[in-house]
Amino acid sequence: MTTDRAYALFEARQRERGIDLEQVMQKLSALQIETPSWGYGDSGTRFKVFRQAGVPRNPFEKLEDAAVVHRLTGICPSVAIHIPWDKVDDYAKLKAHAEGLGLRIGAVNPNLFQDDDYKFGSVTNVDARIRRKAVDHLLECAAIAKEVGSNVLSLWFADGTNYPGQGDFRQRRRWLHEALAELYQALGPDMRMLIEYKFFEPAFYHTDLADWGMAYTAAIKLGPKAQVLVDTGHHAQGTNVEHIVAVLLDEGKLGGFHFNSRKYADDDLIVGAHNPYELFLIFYQIVAAMAADDPAVRACAEHIAYMIDQSHCIEPKIPAMIRSVQNVQTQYAKALLINLEEVKDFQQRNDVLGAEEAVRRAFETDVTPLLIAWREARGLPADPMQAYKQSGYAEKILARGVGGASW
Amino acid sequence: MTTDRAYALFEARQRERGIDLEQVMQKLSALQIETPSWGYGDSGTRFKVFRQAGVPRNPFEKLEDAAVVHRLTGICPSVAIHIPWDKVDDYAKLKAHAEGLGLRIGAVNPNLFQDDDYKFGSVTNVDARIRRKAVDHLLECAAIAKEVGSNVLSLWFADGTNYPGQGDFRQRRRWLHEALAELYQALGPDMRMLIEYKFFEPAFYHTDLADWGMAYTAAIKLGPKAQVLVDTGHHAQGTNVEHIVAVLLDEGKLGGFHFNSRKYADDDLIVGAHNPYELFLIFYQIVAAMAADDPAVRACAEHIAYMIDQSHCIEPKIPAMIRSVQNVQTQYAKALLINLEEVKDFQQRNDVLGAEEAVRRAFETDVTPLLIAWREARGLPADPMQAYKQSGYAEKILARGVGGASW
Amino acid sequence: MTTDRAYALFEARQRERGIDLEQVMQKLSALQIETPSWGYGDSGTRFKVFRQAGVPRNPFEKLEDAAVVHRLTGICPSVAIHIPWDKVDDYAKLKAHAEGLGLRIGAVNPNLFQDDDYKFGSVTNVDARIRRKAVDHLLECAAIAKEVGSNVLSLWFADGTNYPGQGDFRQRRRWLHEALAELYQALGPDMRMLIEYKFFEPAFYHTDLADWGMAYTAAIKLGPKAQVLVDTGHHAQGTNVEHIVAVLLDEGKLGGFHFNSRKYADDDLIVGAHNPYELFLIFYQIVAAMAADDPAVRACAEHIAYMIDQSHCIEPKIPAMIRSVQNVQTQYAKALLINLEEVKDFQQRNDVLGAEEAVRRAFETDVTPLLIAWREARGLPADPMQAYKQSGYAEKILARGVGGASW
Amino acid sequence: MTTDRAYALFEARQRERGIDLEQVMQKLSALQIETPSWGYGDSGTRFKVFRQAGVPRNPFEKLEDAAVVHRLTGICPSVAIHIPWDKVDDYAKLKAHAEGLGLRIGAVNPNLFQDDDYKFGSVTNVDARIRRKAVDHLLECAAIAKEVGSNVLSLWFADGTNYPGQGDFRQRRRWLHEALAELYQALGPDMRMLIEYKFFEPAFYHTDLADWGMAYTAAIKLGPKAQVLVDTGHHAQGTNVEHIVAVLLDEGKLGGFHFNSRKYADDDLIVGAHNPYELFLIFYQIVAAMAADDPAVRACAEHIAYMIDQSHCIEPKIPAMIRSVQNVQTQYAKALLINLEEVKDFQQRNDVLGAEEAVRRAFETDVTPLLIAWREARGLPADPMQAYKQSGYAEKILARGVGGASW
Repeated sequence: MTTDRAYALFEARQRERGIDLEQVMQKLSALQIETPSWGYGDSGTRFKVFRQAGVPRNPFEKLEDAAVVHRLTGICPSVAIHIPWDKVDDYAKLKAHAEGLGLRIGAVNPNLFQDDDYKFGSVTNVDARIRRKAVDHLLECAAIAKEVGSNVLSLWFADGTNYPGQGDFRQRRRWLHEALAELYQALGPDMRMLIEYKFFEPAFYHTDLADWGMAYTAAIKLGPKAQVLVDTGHHAQGTNVEHIVAVLLDEGKLGGFHFNSRKYADDDLIVGAHNPYELFLIFYQIVAAMAADDPAVRACAEHIAYMIDQSHCIEPKIPAMIRSVQNVQTQYAKALLINLEEVKDFQQRNDVLGAEEAVRRAFETDVTPLLIAWREARGLPADPMQAYKQSGYAEKILARGVGGASW
Repeated sequence: MTTDRAYALFEARQRERGIDLEQVMQKLSALQIETPSWGYGDSGTRFKVFRQAGVPRNPFEKLEDAAVVHRLTGICPSVAIHIPWDKVDDYAKLKAHAEGLGLRIGAVNPNLFQDDDYKFGSVTNVDARIRRKAVDHLLECAAIAKEVGSNVLSLWFADGTNYPGQGDFRQRRRWLHEALAELYQALGPDMRMLIEYKFFEPAFYHTDLADWGMAYTAAIKLGPKAQVLVDTGHHAQGTNVEHIVAVLLDEGKLGGFHFNSRKYADDDLIVGAHNPYELFLIFYQIVAAMAADDPAVRACAEHIAYMIDQSHCIEPKIPAMIRSVQNVQTQYAKALLINLEEVKDFQQRNDVLGAEEAVRRAFETDVTPLLIAWREARGLPADPMQAYKQSGYAEKILARGVGGASW
Repeated sequence: MTTDRAYALFEARQRERGIDLEQVMQKLSALQIETPSWGYGDSGTRFKVFRQAGVPRNPFEKLEDAAVVHRLTGICPSVAIHIPWDKVDDYAKLKAHAEGLGLRIGAVNPNLFQDDDYKFGSVTNVDARIRRKAVDHLLECAAIAKEVGSNVLSLWFADGTNYPGQGDFRQRRRWLHEALAELYQALGPDMRMLIEYKFFEPAFYHTDLADWGMAYTAAIKLGPKAQVLVDTGHHAQGTNVEHIVAVLLDEGKLGGFHFNSRKYADDDLIVGAHNPYELFLIFYQIVAAMAADDPAVRACAEHIAYMIDQSHCIEPKIPAMIRSVQNVQTQYAKALLINLEEVKDFQQRNDVLGAEEAVRRAFETDVTPLLIAWREARGLPADPMQAYKQSGYAEKILARGVGGASW
Repeated sequence: MTTDRAYALFEARQRERGIDLEQVMQKLSALQIETPSWGYGDSGTRFKVFRQAGVPRNPFEKLEDAAVVHRLTGICPSVAIHIPWDKVDDYAKLKAHAEGLGLRIGAVNPNLFQDDDYKFGSVTNVDARIRRKAVDHLLECAAIAKEVGSNVLSLWFADGTNYPGQGDFRQRRRWLHEALAELYQALGPDMRMLIEYKFFEPAFYHTDLADWGMAYTAAIKLGPKAQVLVDTGHHAQGTNVEHIVAVLLDEGKLGGFHFNSRKYADDDLIVGAHNPYELFLIFYQIVAAMAADDPAVRACAEHIAYMIDQSHCIEPKIPAMIRSVQNVQTQYAKALLINLEEVKDFQQRNDVLGAEEAVRRAFETDVTPLLIAWREARGLPADPMQAYKQSGYAEKILARGVGGASW
């Protein structure tokens, strides 16, 4: 069997390199990637939403699709929900449905951008009534989180302006901080709020939380339960995202990720499909932080919430999600193969080429044998995508028809 | 009257600088800016379309709104239409309606991105049936153009791919060229086709016509009736758009503009609202080309089709259009105040600061007195925006209700 | 006289708009722009330094050139120095020379990038000896500041890496913070240290202080004497710099500016020469902060250190500096013409077009009459550039020959 | 031996995938990568050139270093030279020296940016004398090419402007085209001229040849011996370089590459060190073109001149070059493992995920066993970098001291 030979060879190579494969296997087992309910529905660009047949028609069906992804990959036990897209009358029922499928509800995501009232801002609106409404929605989401057993609120504000003069930057900032402070008080003892930032879109002049620094200054005013969420597609071109990741880890303020890939703007494509090396380098920082001297840095690295946030405009949704999860797992596995001591030695001697190669070599390693071995040891299919194709699920859901959930 | 004093002072200053104001007035009179029918309807981002009350419900009402803009500004006699958004049973009737309003139909814009068939491309689709359908639509638009008396086809292809491997770049390019060649044959003797390019969106990996060079190589294969259309928001960050404008003028291949402004991507904001200096510098190249030694360059510059293409997501549509038109007129007027001989003298001596100042000084000039004088001489309101507010039109169209035309 | 007529007209217009011109004049008088000693010397790109005749040969001559700029503009009383470029045996003599010229020494800038020891970092070097050397240089600069009567240390670190793996992001960050902490202890009671950040260059993978957030997290750990310095050319493409300015003002952490303009990277061109609207919008935020309710914000805005930092590769140095200073003064003057109450009214009503226009109208105003009036009232030449040309200074300094100071 | 097992496994896997390894080996043997003489000398940023010990002191020593790279990698038989950096009295002697080392002289690169005369442009200068001087230098380089037996002129023009108004875009363009036309006449029957373009730097407002379209319009006016040169670092952020490569191949106008990598601007780092997937995707287009139906496209792909153009500011020069060459070979080898028929099948069915995976799978393959096998079959060291370290050459050249050649 080439698979066995491949793993034997892989194992020999990594032992030669001083890599402890048992520890790698353990760390692989600790990785959990949350998939988003909305990733199973229809989405598109401002020009067109192409509807796909078989898309789930309600939150329950979304969870069913997410369960398939978890069953095949073994690392997606939780599902993020979005309110009101996933609003239901009975959240206990939704929670039970998830549990029945072997899942739990993950981050709760408020929606503060699709109500007509929010045309000129939600928590930053000049109208106190609308700000109140927005904060009430945040509080509602905190309550829902408690009901569904979630301990994470994932906060993205679309608030911003399109033209110079349209809004008062500082006043809006203070309103935003006030809203967050009120929400913070409503967090349960084990809950966290993750504050997302975004370079631009849907606002095209200024976005109230435009970069990690703006999310960070909000988070430190609140306390330890407030952290920053990094969406890999929310930066200016050229930004060194892994550097930001390292800084946030150093500050104990990295709360989670929204994974996706991009070439241009917030393209929300399959994570790892464009510039996969960047994803690897992000995990290099995380893996290094897991081995940091400072226990606060280690603790931060261990509690990162990894979440997919993509818009599958032209791809079939479930396979796109499986591919995304596999890409994350692949780059994480590669990062685990970096010999950190070796890198450190090169760094100490300013051996630039040596250090660079020590990192890149891990990236260039084919981790397929490792991942197959890990999956087989857990009774998971060696090739989740292939298993999906053979499962007949894609055909089965066609009965749902065209025109399911979308945003 | 401060207005009279202001113009007298303006006149004195410009004469001192050696500017022939009569010629400036003539050139101002020659400027025509086409507004797009879709700019009067609802539009938005992928996150939300905020519906506005009073938006036109059909192509006829769009023309009525466009007529208001022309009445107040005096420089918007034509209106671009988009098929099928402006599809009507009787184009002769649409043409007559326009003429009755003092307008004519301008560029005809095909739509090759909102039919489900075009999910993976229109003229570049692997499916010959879909390519045929796309070309037929192009031919239909050429026929409509003849019916409505338009001599411009404005071609934007959303075609592209999201992932490496998804499409065959070279094969798609050849299909695209074939489609254009067939359309070219259908052009009437006085018709032009303008080929637009775009850096990205809605495709996020490659766009089949991604830059001016790709549009240009298509245009030169076709012949003199094919030219390039520059949308000011369709470039990579940092691109020197005015340089591209100069190169296309030098090649006789600049056919027209889609004006709008952007800070990030294809934000489609009000032209001149962000980095107004760039718009001025574009007009500097055009004004210089109008005075070029080479008659081909001059002819090209004189026949540019100036068109607005914006997405007024949060602004009231008609005032947004008036503002846009005024911003274009303002920057054009400023460019007319550049003393080209003076600039040339500085250039000849490599007096960098002198040349830069000679250009910038024109930009820093307040052309309000000039524009007011020009308007008053033509019986137009001195302040079109103010006149619009006082006209009662905004209130009148509220009767149309919410939920008019959109894309 | 057209000048008098122009001012009378200007005055009438501004009074109509509700602008208090006396207050504007006072604020104009409060503006001081520091010019950098190195801006008078030769500089270039990595490809070539073009030497100019007449460039100062030593720090004393640099001050003489700076004095000319101050004499003609009236707003450049201080000169930033750079150590060791401006190293002298006797700083008391340098200080006295400045005072004799009507100047004072402004910010002291350490140089931690041109010693061979700093090839792989200065305060972030893995070698403790080199880190010590770097910190000692910082302390030396603090001592020099005290000697020359300066109360500002302006800190730019070129430290960074070119390749993944080359350096340990978190470890380097902690070394950098340690160095700053030691320097902080050495600051005199009225001294400030301004921490600059930069997107990239000369490091091409990561820069230890890459954005305002990284400078900010350093500054808040130190205390009130540490603030952030914004160089207008040190951001990713598309960054909304004025938004960052507003956030730093809101946090009381905006310490100063390095002014210059750019189209691409850190081009270090004459400030205001590219996208002048951005410079205006930065001043809009500052002027608004000067009128803030929060006294901490007002205090921060009043104490900003405005500094030019440019590289005049092809322009004559002194005229380039005069132009730069005038461009800053011009955009500041325009920002003072914004009627903040009017803008606020529009904002309260979400009148996007009204608010945008209220801001832009100030930008479109020609402030030449205002600046001439302000200059004449102070006995300054109405046109500093013209006065420089007529002064004969440019010819006089030719005697210095080619090959003066450079970096 | 793990090496043998690894190759056996590799071979089995690729045969399963339908890859013809013999053909892959043949194509690997056809790959030749030219190294640049200046890559062995000192270089730096505008802030500092860090001098390295052992750097060659003259063109002869540069060739000696290049010969080491060729000896170890087997694929670098030619060396690009730069005039006047590599100016010698006797070019026949230089040619003989190269041949004695097993090398030949490759592309001849004129230098039109380091003479004081070129401060405001070379072939685009307003001064006819300077334009003449620049053209004469081009002709001199053509003559040198003939003397050294080179058939490629590699043309990069630093010409451009820093400020609006500084230069006349169209006039400069015509001068540039005139200069190229004169040079074209001087080309020998087998010679090519490759026209490079660059987004920006050292000019910061406009660069006369700013993008591939501008180089292309120059090339088509000249004839078949003029082609475009793509430097992988000379594009705006986000540019899809592989798409440009495909378009140029389709037009038969892709002449060559300057390889390097970048994260920000023209960083000139080791090729493949940043975003290695991009380099792979470029080779995917080339490999696909080698299999094109159109013989003109195939011919173009077969005659590409692959050249390294980097600035090793902090790395030791020879190892940096070995690493660069290996990175190119690696990504080329990976591209050869794409099963083009499989990709085409997926494309025909619009199976986006299948096509993407078919391409990416080749990238994720570890080609080390393949490259070792290829090297061993040719008597080359399995690990060129290791072999270099053991060769003692690095120690030997230290005798050259510090302060060798630089630019």
